[in-house]
Amino acid sequence: MPRQVDYEERRRQIAEAVRLLITRSGMEAVSLRDVAAEAHVSMGAVQRCFRTKDEMLLFALEDISRRVGDRAKARIEASDAPRSAATLLDRTLSALALVDPEDRAEAQVWGAFVAHAAVSDQLAAVLRETYGKLHDLLVWLIGYGQDTGELTPTADPATEARTLLALTEGLTAQVLVGHLTPESAQEALRRYGRGLLTRG
Amino acid sequence: MPRQVDYEERRRQIAEAVRLLITRSGMEAVSLRDVAAEAHVSMGAVQRCFRTKDEMLLFALEDISRRVGDRAKARIEASDAPRSAATLLDRTLSALALVDPEDRAEAQVWGAFVAHAAVSDQLAAVLRETYGKLHDLLVWLIGYGQDTGELTPTADPATEARTLLALTEGLTAQVLVGHLTPESAQEALRRYGRGLLTRG
Repeated sequence: MPRQVDYEERRRQIAEAVRLLITRSGMEAVSLRDVAAEAHVSMGAVQRCFRTKDEMLLFALEDISRRVGDRAKARIEASDAPRSAATLLDRTLSALALVDPEDRAEAQVWGAFVAHAAVSDQLAAVLRETYGKLHDLLVWLIGYGQDTGELTPTADPATEARTLLALTEGLTAQVLVGHLTPESAQEALRRYGRGLLTRG
Repeated sequence: MPRQVDYEERRRQIAEAVRLLITRSGMEAVSLRDVAAEAHVSMGAVQRCFRTKDEMLLFALEDISRRVGDRAKARIEASDAPRSAATLLDRTLSALALVDPEDRAEAQVWGAFVAHAAVSDQLAAVLRETYGKLHDLLVWLIGYGQDTGELTPTADPATEARTLLALTEGLTAQVLVGHLTPESAQEALRRYGRGLLTRG
């Protein structure tokens, strides 16, 4: 079914154009006309892929969530001690925080979506689902570390996961505006993580 | 000098219109035309107050920063034990986090500015200055609590201030999209604060 393949490819190409426009000029730069120009397709082609602007943004956000998830997995698999819970937690948090310079574009797009979600119920629903999954992943990682004896048994996994997720979100924003350096944000994350270890 | 007074009043009125538009439809709704309509002034009047859109946003952001600072002060003064460092810290964090339902509009505007700052050097500079001041306030509060013996002497004030500020920022965003309830965000802040007390 080549038509179907073309359609998905076209949608990804448009999502990529949305990301580039947000990175360059912010969410308010995302007009149908500019997206079409950036993706080198006609306005009609954009409209055949997405019925509304919100639907287009939604697809771009799901695409970003997937990429962040894939990168977290890749970083975990590339680590020296993949079975250590402390290492898994450290790599996951560092992937989620988007504070490395190469993550800047994604941090920017993520921030634009979070801000826009305040006025779009559809986007807010996708973000809530993503946060929910990340929360569950962190709860699982903390529980695993408690099972292996690496993490302190007194920590409540759900509470810690909530705090860690908020911390990564806040650090991302503060690196983005230049209040923190990527290094000091990573250090703040590591320091919090060390507090969870049985041997600090 | 009535003209000067009118000018400042007009600028505040326009900043208020910018806030309302962002709260209702997001940063991309802030066009010169819509701001003029919302503020019930002519487009010429907006242009006499602000030379560029960025200058207008900058003024609205400074206005928001001032309001958040004023509210933090008011909450501290309204507290039962204003001299207790633990109370001061608790009230300050709760004012900064903008997680109460009545703070929703400001949380929304703040998030929109943080996202937009990624593509505006001028806005980023104002945000960095604001974060810098808030960081200094938290460092001072933690040092004060260490002097009174309420907070643990082993905590490094600068590191703790950095973590607390990122945490409030992240919690604000997650309440805004509905991942956390205001109550669970307040609880996460309190729990972190309790970890700093000499008697938990």
